[in-house]
Amino acid sequence: MLAELELIWSLVYHRATSKYAILSEAPHAHSGPEMGSLKHWKITMQLLDGKACSAKIRQEIAKTVSEIKASGQRAPHLAAVLVGNDGASQNYVAFKVKDCAEVDFESTTIRLEDTISEQELLAKVNELNNNDAIDGFIVQLPLPKHIDENKIILAINPAKDVDGFCPENVGRLNLGLPTFISATPNGIMELLKRYEIDTEGKHCVILGRSNIVGTPMAVLMSRNTNPGNATVTIAHSRTKSLAALCSTADILIVAIGKTEFVTADMVKEGAVVIDVGQTRVPDDSKKSGFRNVGDVDFENVKNKCSYITYVTGGVGPMTRASLLQNTLKANLRR
Amino acid sequence: MLAELELIWSLVYHRATSKYAILSEAPHAHSGPEMGSLKHWKITMQLLDGKACSAKIRQEIAKTVSEIKASGQRAPHLAAVLVGNDGASQNYVAFKVKDCAEVDFESTTIRLEDTISEQELLAKVNELNNNDAIDGFIVQLPLPKHIDENKIILAINPAKDVDGFCPENVGRLNLGLPTFISATPNGIMELLKRYEIDTEGKHCVILGRSNIVGTPMAVLMSRNTNPGNATVTIAHSRTKSLAALCSTADILIVAIGKTEFVTADMVKEGAVVIDVGQTRVPDDSKKSGFRNVGDVDFENVKNKCSYITYVTGGVGPMTRASLLQNTLKANLRR
Repeated sequence: MLAELELIWSLVYHRATSKYAILSEAPHAHSGPEMGSLKHWKITMQLLDGKACSAKIRQEIAKTVSEIKASGQRAPHLAAVLVGNDGASQNYVAFKVKDCAEVDFESTTIRLEDTISEQELLAKVNELNNNDAIDGFIVQLPLPKHIDENKIILAINPAKDVDGFCPENVGRLNLGLPTFISATPNGIMELLKRYEIDTEGKHCVILGRSNIVGTPMAVLMSRNTNPGNATVTIAHSRTKSLAALCSTADILIVAIGKTEFVTADMVKEGAVVIDVGQTRVPDDSKKSGFRNVGDVDFENVKNKCSYITYVTGGVGPMTRASLLQNTLKANLRR
Repeated sequence: MLAELELIWSLVYHRATSKYAILSEAPHAHSGPEMGSLKHWKITMQLLDGKACSAKIRQEIAKTVSEIKASGQRAPHLAAVLVGNDGASQNYVAFKVKDCAEVDFESTTIRLEDTISEQELLAKVNELNNNDAIDGFIVQLPLPKHIDENKIILAINPAKDVDGFCPENVGRLNLGLPTFISATPNGIMELLKRYEIDTEGKHCVILGRSNIVGTPMAVLMSRNTNPGNATVTIAHSRTKSLAALCSTADILIVAIGKTEFVTADMVKEGAVVIDVGQTRVPDDSKKSGFRNVGDVDFENVKNKCSYITYVTGGVGPMTRASLLQNTLKANLRR
């Protein structure tokens, strides 16, 4: 049944639009004994190298910073608020500081005890809102349970909200107005753009409907822009027959936080696969004692794809670069 | 091929979940000579009566208003800004004034010449923002070409933006925070809710990606709420094989402004069809000289549906009721 579904969706979405159309119209080409005679249809998989792409973006940003400084202005300045001693949060903030140094931004880390009250944290946010020496800031999530995250996010001045989490900025994204697009969706759009991946009229399936990845991704991919103009399906935990749906996707964006959830049988030949997941799993063979695993079974999926990201050199570095882009934007807007 | 596509999507989305599953697994049941023996599967179409439903909502609102007034507070007060003499705009505003009277709201219409400057209109918006006697206001669109609509919308105080067009309110909708949901999507959600239509896990196809209907509708239907929890596909002018896609929809929401665009062959047996379109076409047989036509070919589609809205007693009255709901909410929040 899956093969039929693939065939029909291929006809629906691809009719004579790409090399994959030809392949898709012969859905058994890659599974039967006649495969030898169809070798010329084989897809060449290309890695979407977020590491290389983000290095390029950082270079571009560093160049702009040198121009800003040459013109007598101060460099962009990012502040990060870190509450408590969560290991992962500390790592994320350390990366952000390192990234800032690399592009010659100023950065400030504000470390606060996890006993801080909501009121005290709101006062700190307000102080940063009013500090003219800081262009943008982030409050690293998650926060301790006694603090209402929404209340903190709502207190951030939208003009300094470089994470793009405030309602004002989320709404601006929806309305196509200038804004800070949150880092992961922005990084994915940048990756699609720089690899010149044709998204117009393609069926893009997004697994996950979170506020910071799935939902903004759906809005961006459906807009009348390039990348964009895709027919977008938002799938989630209540979606029925998820596997069959995924196998109809020309572009599959996975952000559900379940390790190796997307297996080869769920992916159409020639699909573009973007893996947002990154979960630490114990691994004694590693010096660190763990390895990072994505939401996609990379080893088995990769050979079916035209393009695919890998963990940790795919979406992760692009997300980090996006925060720098937003901070630069905040500086230039002032 | 369409029949096969229907069959497969039926299996994908419906497996044994509803009466339509049974019908869908026998896709030729309604088209062959054997139809007689399958009569017991016939779907009974039910009109989604927005007129009756909105009358009920207005009753509920009027009751709350009487309680507000009994408690010594003033009634909700809606203001509408009408620029120029566009016939349709004048009609819309007249309806809003009439609706207010019916639920015992106060209303004020502010009529401005179409020669008004952007600056003068911004000053008027600011005046309304600061007028404590007014709970909410709308600026009737479209505005004359010399005025930037975005600039006007961005100037409205989000706490009085009962149209729900401001970025702050659009973002709050996306984030699942309390907000004013724009009138048409809110009206459709209300209709689905009051008719207790099961949307969870259903495939909802939305035709149109506008800021005020298609996009917020997609967000609302995909959220973890009831109604909601649907697998949502956003389709638009760049979507390929739109007809085949539509025929896979359990719930089809049409907002593209093309008269009778959705024909019977595009609709799956048992689908729920919501028609947002409403276009005036000349009709000499009518006293008014025109009739309103939707985006759906109602006469031919209706018999395939489990539920369907009709023009003008479907989405239109629900949209009008939603504006009243938002104005009441603005009053209660003060």
